[in-house]
Amino acid sequence: MKVGVLGSGDVGKALGKAFVALGHDVKMGSRSATNEKALAWARALGPKASVGTFADAAGFGELVLLATLGEANEEVLKAAGPERLAGKILIDTTNPLDHSGGGPPKLSVSGNDSGGERVQRLVPGAKVVKAFNTVGNALMFRPELPGGPPDMFIAGNDAAAKQTVTALLKDFGWGEVHDLGGIESSRYLEPMCIVWVLSALRGQHWNQAFKLLRK
Amino acid sequence: MKVGVLGSGDVGKALGKAFVALGHDVKMGSRSATNEKALAWARALGPKASVGTFADAAGFGELVLLATLGEANEEVLKAAGPERLAGKILIDTTNPLDHSGGGPPKLSVSGNDSGGERVQRLVPGAKVVKAFNTVGNALMFRPELPGGPPDMFIAGNDAAAKQTVTALLKDFGWGEVHDLGGIESSRYLEPMCIVWVLSALRGQHWNQAFKLLRK
Repeated sequence: MKVGVLGSGDVGKALGKAFVALGHDVKMGSRSATNEKALAWARALGPKASVGTFADAAGFGELVLLATLGEANEEVLKAAGPERLAGKILIDTTNPLDHSGGGPPKLSVSGNDSGGERVQRLVPGAKVVKAFNTVGNALMFRPELPGGPPDMFIAGNDAAAKQTVTALLKDFGWGEVHDLGGIESSRYLEPMCIVWVLSALRGQHWNQAFKLLRK
Repeated sequence: MKVGVLGSGDVGKALGKAFVALGHDVKMGSRSATNEKALAWARALGPKASVGTFADAAGFGELVLLATLGEANEEVLKAAGPERLAGKILIDTTNPLDHSGGGPPKLSVSGNDSGGERVQRLVPGAKVVKAFNTVGNALMFRPELPGGPPDMFIAGNDAAAKQTVTALLKDFGWGEVHDLGGIESSRYLEPMCIVWVLSALRGQHWNQAFKLLRK
């Protein structure tokens, strides 16, 4: 499958590398088609990895990952071009984090709205699926932990898109995939990111991921 | 220890029974001192269990549990009397659930406020600790699950109160207790309750509890 990655930060690099490892073709998009970080990432991964602008990556991907800082989502999606994302699955890995307070991050969008819903409104023709937002980039692929595999929590309006993402998450090594309903359930998943962050900060345990134990 | 329980629903009964099982003296408070459900609960548990009004239970407890429906918190805390809770630990087990939509519950308070903060504002002299709100009542005590014990997530403004609650949670059989900071972190824990509910509804898996897997 052809995968576009919007963003060349740690999340974009980790997920792009994972898709290459699984045999997919990945184009990483940045503001500039000659972004040094993206070029270095692609060089290290070989012919299945390429780089381009946000628009290039959005046009390339049959499936596209949004892996920018949450606060950049609007600008990045406009640069990518909503028309290039129409009809495609867009995995929203982001959280609307506000780091302005100096302490732990807060949510800049919460309550009766969410970052996931904003993304869906910005690209109404895309099938947005929230995923990967409740874990750090180090554990997004093959999350090997004692007692694992951990679970992933997803949300989105398109049932078939969520089935595709669920299958991908299994390929990635995740345990149960909990479908929480429509994209508005991002209202619950984005606060859960903060639970992850606050717990990681307190214990300095960044290699951690949620699981719902069941009997 | 003397424990007051505000509420005679499933959560109050389960937690009250647990404290009795651990050798504590528990008074369950209701609107009426002759609440049939509370009397039946106490009769089944013997001399360490007693009943009374909300004010009776608040006055009795060295530690008090708020185990009402979230929407009743204000009325119940006024009936209990904030002055009877001053200086005491008040464990807030509640979630501000809005069931009016007919579908899965939503949060009636969210974003830049939370049920936990409202409780703290209603009883400013109490040491409110959010706990038990991310799991169903069937698993609050001795939560035996494959891969367990599961973890508990707490929040509150008083460090010593959180230490006491952490020790109690260990007595109850919980694994790691994640202290997420001040009571404002209820903003993140109450949405996590909805993640639990939506996941339970989808899979009809009510015997489930969160754990943060770590390496």
